[in-house]
Amino acid sequence: MSSYIIQEDKLRNFTEAVFKRIGCTEKDAALAADVLIASDLRGIDSHGVARLSGYIRLWEKKRINPTPNITIVHETATTATVDGDSGLGLVVAPFAMKLAIEKAEKYGSGWVSVRNSNHFGIAGYHALEAIRRDMIGFAMTNASPLVAPTFTTERLLGTNPMCYAFPAGKYPPVVIDMATSAAANGKLEIAQRAGKPLPEGWVQSNSGDNTTDPHALKAGGSLLPLGSDREHGSHKGFGLGATVDILSAVLSGANYGPWVPPFVSFLDPLPNLPGLGIGHFVGAMRVDGFRPVEEFKSHMDNWIERFKSAKPIDANQPLVIPGEPELEAEAERKIHGIPLVDPVVKDLNEMAKTLGIDGI
Amino acid sequence: MSSYIIQEDKLRNFTEAVFKRIGCTEKDAALAADVLIASDLRGIDSHGVARLSGYIRLWEKKRINPTPNITIVHETATTATVDGDSGLGLVVAPFAMKLAIEKAEKYGSGWVSVRNSNHFGIAGYHALEAIRRDMIGFAMTNASPLVAPTFTTERLLGTNPMCYAFPAGKYPPVVIDMATSAAANGKLEIAQRAGKPLPEGWVQSNSGDNTTDPHALKAGGSLLPLGSDREHGSHKGFGLGATVDILSAVLSGANYGPWVPPFVSFLDPLPNLPGLGIGHFVGAMRVDGFRPVEEFKSHMDNWIERFKSAKPIDANQPLVIPGEPELEAEAERKIHGIPLVDPVVKDLNEMAKTLGIDGI
Repeated sequence: MSSYIIQEDKLRNFTEAVFKRIGCTEKDAALAADVLIASDLRGIDSHGVARLSGYIRLWEKKRINPTPNITIVHETATTATVDGDSGLGLVVAPFAMKLAIEKAEKYGSGWVSVRNSNHFGIAGYHALEAIRRDMIGFAMTNASPLVAPTFTTERLLGTNPMCYAFPAGKYPPVVIDMATSAAANGKLEIAQRAGKPLPEGWVQSNSGDNTTDPHALKAGGSLLPLGSDREHGSHKGFGLGATVDILSAVLSGANYGPWVPPFVSFLDPLPNLPGLGIGHFVGAMRVDGFRPVEEFKSHMDNWIERFKSAKPIDANQPLVIPGEPELEAEAERKIHGIPLVDPVVKDLNEMAKTLGIDGI
Repeated sequence: MSSYIIQEDKLRNFTEAVFKRIGCTEKDAALAADVLIASDLRGIDSHGVARLSGYIRLWEKKRINPTPNITIVHETATTATVDGDSGLGLVVAPFAMKLAIEKAEKYGSGWVSVRNSNHFGIAGYHALEAIRRDMIGFAMTNASPLVAPTFTTERLLGTNPMCYAFPAGKYPPVVIDMATSAAANGKLEIAQRAGKPLPEGWVQSNSGDNTTDPHALKAGGSLLPLGSDREHGSHKGFGLGATVDILSAVLSGANYGPWVPPFVSFLDPLPNLPGLGIGHFVGAMRVDGFRPVEEFKSHMDNWIERFKSAKPIDANQPLVIPGEPELEAEAERKIHGIPLVDPVVKDLNEMAKTLGIDGI
């Protein structure tokens, strides 16, 4: 699948050049590239440079402002709403997280809801910023509608990911970074490329029937919430997706539900939008606001050790601590490079040509 | 099923009398009864008076302290850790939520982790306290281990519920109150009484095989996380249960994972516990810390209207707004009374006899 392997630095330089080419400042280009490359390093290929040309096409449509004036529009000691001025979410979300961390440093916790932004990459990137300061990190975002709530056939929610990140001591942080749908869209794309049917419970047809067709979304179908059907708790997945939508958008003044602007540039936003851009919600809490840091970390280590030693169903497949596979991928890819599938390489090089810069 | 129907007041008076009989103050007895009755009113029968004798049996074993000295053991402007002194969670959690709300009034948000507590009833009760002050409410708790993480056969997590509650304008609040397992234990009990097989994906046998046996837990099986299996996202349900466990217990100094003391009094806690009692985590954020309250509420109303109008798969089964069925049950039961199944009536009357008070 991945005939092409590229070193981190080369991919980073290329990505920065692309962002600078569309008018981002040196600093913003470096930051936006860092968020995307972090995703590729962590093995979340769907959210890294595979999306770069998508951001650029939104810029071409003037839906992304490369030089945003990001402002705080509402604030208390520990809460704030930030307006991203249609900037890259890759730049707006770090601004919001920095603000949340500053508030947490002073008052124990900080919470920032964001409007008028665009897709922010992987939630884990932002939550991990808190970890570095011995804080617990939270990050979530709404996204273009693809998921039908339980009992319905309408796409009203995005895959709306939520991330909770906890620092540990001798072990890596525990990072729970998950879409609130049963399966992420990227998994459908893999099945499409392989020409394979999907497992039941991932998608439904446009009439709400079960289907294993990997192309069902293109025919008006929808992704299913985590839980897949009512009997297995899809109303919980819907509730989690709703939580992300409300905290990210109803709270900030961004668009919510079916009004979240599509990431793909060939679809225009709906008319009469109730808000501005897409929304995020980020937060940080100082661990020592609750318990001495070393005490917390030593119990996190104990928690991790106990769970890692859980009796496996299959001796070859032990329990996975959330965040560990991503860290292993990062260690591996920092040394051996980042694999890119051919369609992504082709897409990046075509984009580079259009922009008049060197390809990868 | 429910041959017996009792009016709210009568059940409340009885429940208060029980708590007073074990030594609770007038005020604590009224509060603890209020939490349990709220559950019965809201139709969550498994968490109301059906559990009353369970609390009393823990008191008999001296595992519940009826006159706790609840203290704040660690604090910043917006965070705190509370020690419940082995009190009823029904009393300790409201103390913690009151503290979170006071902090939110002053600083925009407040977050309290709780150790040395016991089961706190329904998470929704505590989160709804924030709603009444135009705040967003959060409540979660860990619980006796019944759920096996993905790939394992060991019960390492409770059904660990999380609740997010959002005020609305002309509509009732949106209340997402959910176990992080595929199905709650109460649903198994219903299948056991009816002698019916379970749907696949709720439980596994002690060797980790799929099973539809409603008695599988008694034979060493376990509940499955939300998502049911890895292919359908059970690692996400595991991640959510882990989040609840860490925020409630690793952060506060309560017991976590397999060490959470069992709710049933016939099982003793494990030796060498890493913490004190069970743990909760509650929080509140002022809506006007982000956006004027009326603006937020009018957009919540718009959100609710749009989702309620979603095209249903079956015209007879429209989308359900989280929290609405509970509110409908409450309206109905406040007028027509609370149905109790025969085993619960029998259990309550036997307990009353043992305690030397009038039955229901």
